[in-house]
Amino acid sequence: MFKSINHQDIAFFKQICGEDAVFIDDDSLLKYSKDETEDLSFKPEVVLKPNHTSQISDVLKYCHEHLIAVTPRGGGTGLSGGSLPVFGGVSLSLERFNKIIQIDEQNLQATVETGVITQVLMDAATEKGLYYPIDPSSKGSCFIGGNIAHGSGGPRVVKYGTLRDFVLNLEVVLPNGDIIWTGANTLKYASGYNLTQLFIGSEGTLGIITKAVVKLIAKPIHQLLMMAAFTSEEEACAAVSAIFKSGITPSALEFMERKGVEWVVNYAQLNFNILDDAKAYLLIELDGNYLDVLYQDCETINTVLEQYHCLDVLLAESSTQKEELWKVRRLMPHSVKSNSIYKEEDTVVPRASLPKLIKGIKVLGEKYGFEAICYGHAGDGNLHVNIIKGNMSDVDWNMKLKDGIKEIFELTVSLGGTISGEHGIGLVQKEYMHIKYTETHLNLMRAIKNVFDVKGILNPGKIF
Amino acid sequence: MFKSINHQDIAFFKQICGEDAVFIDDDSLLKYSKDETEDLSFKPEVVLKPNHTSQISDVLKYCHEHLIAVTPRGGGTGLSGGSLPVFGGVSLSLERFNKIIQIDEQNLQATVETGVITQVLMDAATEKGLYYPIDPSSKGSCFIGGNIAHGSGGPRVVKYGTLRDFVLNLEVVLPNGDIIWTGANTLKYASGYNLTQLFIGSEGTLGIITKAVVKLIAKPIHQLLMMAAFTSEEEACAAVSAIFKSGITPSALEFMERKGVEWVVNYAQLNFNILDDAKAYLLIELDGNYLDVLYQDCETINTVLEQYHCLDVLLAESSTQKEELWKVRRLMPHSVKSNSIYKEEDTVVPRASLPKLIKGIKVLGEKYGFEAICYGHAGDGNLHVNIIKGNMSDVDWNMKLKDGIKEIFELTVSLGGTISGEHGIGLVQKEYMHIKYTETHLNLMRAIKNVFDVKGILNPGKIF
Repeated sequence: MFKSINHQDIAFFKQICGEDAVFIDDDSLLKYSKDETEDLSFKPEVVLKPNHTSQISDVLKYCHEHLIAVTPRGGGTGLSGGSLPVFGGVSLSLERFNKIIQIDEQNLQATVETGVITQVLMDAATEKGLYYPIDPSSKGSCFIGGNIAHGSGGPRVVKYGTLRDFVLNLEVVLPNGDIIWTGANTLKYASGYNLTQLFIGSEGTLGIITKAVVKLIAKPIHQLLMMAAFTSEEEACAAVSAIFKSGITPSALEFMERKGVEWVVNYAQLNFNILDDAKAYLLIELDGNYLDVLYQDCETINTVLEQYHCLDVLLAESSTQKEELWKVRRLMPHSVKSNSIYKEEDTVVPRASLPKLIKGIKVLGEKYGFEAICYGHAGDGNLHVNIIKGNMSDVDWNMKLKDGIKEIFELTVSLGGTISGEHGIGLVQKEYMHIKYTETHLNLMRAIKNVFDVKGILNPGKIF
Repeated sequence: MFKSINHQDIAFFKQICGEDAVFIDDDSLLKYSKDETEDLSFKPEVVLKPNHTSQISDVLKYCHEHLIAVTPRGGGTGLSGGSLPVFGGVSLSLERFNKIIQIDEQNLQATVETGVITQVLMDAATEKGLYYPIDPSSKGSCFIGGNIAHGSGGPRVVKYGTLRDFVLNLEVVLPNGDIIWTGANTLKYASGYNLTQLFIGSEGTLGIITKAVVKLIAKPIHQLLMMAAFTSEEEACAAVSAIFKSGITPSALEFMERKGVEWVVNYAQLNFNILDDAKAYLLIELDGNYLDVLYQDCETINTVLEQYHCLDVLLAESSTQKEELWKVRRLMPHSVKSNSIYKEEDTVVPRASLPKLIKGIKVLGEKYGFEAICYGHAGDGNLHVNIIKGNMSDVDWNMKLKDGIKEIFELTVSLGGTISGEHGIGLVQKEYMHIKYTETHLNLMRAIKNVFDVKGILNPGKIF
């Protein structure tokens, strides 16, 4: 279907991007054949590392003309296989698009190239007393561009909104090489179809996002962090809804089940005492400019938690202790990964349905013989379900498990939810799309793809 | 181009929607020929008032088959002519889609039919201690569906975000009669292209939005309201940016120039004393759960305002006084309308560019001989420019003024802004689209329209 890359193509890429931006050595091809998704690997035929929008435009124009597959790549931290070059061709890395172009302190906006690491933007904002709150677990290595492509996420969404609420305008190179800005650098926009919002979450299938204008906010001065232990997963999840009903919006509200906490404490040798009767934990963060108000909110939350048979609430007393508690949550994916081959499903439901979801997952685990470690952004109803291979046979793991995952997603959708909250569909969830969508709906998406990428060269094999 | 409606069509519509839902009398046709846009009038050939999604589906299927133009209509409060049936055909009113289906107190969500009046939803939420903060000036008569179609707006956006941040899921009837739900009832969503976001702001050109699931939040307990007077428009606008930089996010931050205040005080006989030296006013609202914190924030804001030569700050002392101050802003559009024929342009720029925008508009007013009354949502950089006909000749008004408006939009775009922040493009702004967009960009929008509405029957003549 796609043209294989030959010496002539390589010569062209070198001419456009420079000799030092074109890689065909085995190490590079291997490195760019993987991301953080399970144990999958698909080798590209060439890795390109352009550093200017016009180079990407020329490359895409050429690939469009010659029907060469192009798979964009950010930090390589994706969990749905979105950056895997399943049809070979070009792996187009944005890693040299790493400049923060401007932090605009008057308008509270940043203009960045999309290869900027999320943490780097957060730090640059903090230096000016500003805050960019979209911080996925992988913030130390993921790119802003990848975040945008997946409509990420992270723990602070619950108070501040997803990246969707923070992106104002995007520079995009279309598959035919045309360059557009999708919107305006404004907080409001009602000027025709909102292409900015369409590109957010489009997983690199509609165009290459090269620059972004994002909103910043004033940095809250204080943060409090609590860890609450519960005797059941369901009661922990039920407490989540009750906190919001009390009128308080935490800046993070994370759920972790006991097994996950045990694994991470063991894996990272954390100084955290797991209570005997604890079956689940909530990590609750509050932020704001008035410390006394935050303490009052803590009191209110304590009263709520008591109604759900909370065993114990730990209030972090120092920034060191806060970091230690955050590690319990942030290192959990790593501890799971280190423990066993696993598959991570990114379920999301209306938050009050979390108890039903988690209970249903346990039942399905028994039915299909898998163990699932659940944790995630409970405040958003976003539960990461980590299915552990453990002692499962390869046949069960590769074949039978699909039915189990299918049932997890059917349950999720029946509860008003969807099959990915922040990880995207990419390669590994696409076979489950029909659980959520009718053929009519999928055809609309396919037709939109066709509007932007009539030859289908951009990130082929993803989403549909 | 479109088929005219005949007796057979009327008979079909009556069969589908019921005898009492089909109107062809002169009064109805005249009423549905207008909205709040200037003095424009385009008569439909029939007005339909269905009350069930399946009826709309059948109507659209029929119109799609017979090439009959269909223009959806909400509350008729639009300012860009979006609901005007410029090609005749069907005016499809959503006024009988007026049920609040559910207020979900567990998940803080409401499911509504889209003909629900915005204020009605706000009141229903308030009754449960919840808050739906998207309140355009026309909240007493505009519909949720119209708000969604325009990505509205209103004063509370500055703290809570636009409607774009509150809409979770939509039931939509496509032009061929197919019915889909665009997303999920979840706070996060990364499951393919986000059709929910695409429909928001699509101005009824892609499908008829029949139901919506929207987010609610806990109702803040306290509100403080201040009115600050300035000796120049530029200093008032400059103070806006400074307030945000101080770390405070007001729940509303509205700008009004003196002339507008004079008109509204006179028009509505308001009890408001305009200071001799005041050239502009800011209305500043703060909300939250702790009154002492709000007073501290007021103090901080006062300190900021002093740096911009604020003449006077009035802090409303009672709910009656608050209402009176809000009337100064909310009735301003009505006072302008009562005073003269006018055109309203809905400019939006990054907020720090407001002083340049307002100064530029005054210069253009002198060049083209028009007077412009400016007010709007300064916190979002969203300035409504009301160009007054006054003594202008009809020739100047209808012909020469276009160049002036063109220059206003060129200035807006050159400042990083766009040609509509919340009113939409509709009929009256479409001739200015090329100022903001390249032909490449417009062609993408046109192709998206084509994906959903290949025959172009839905709200024809709008946006492009």
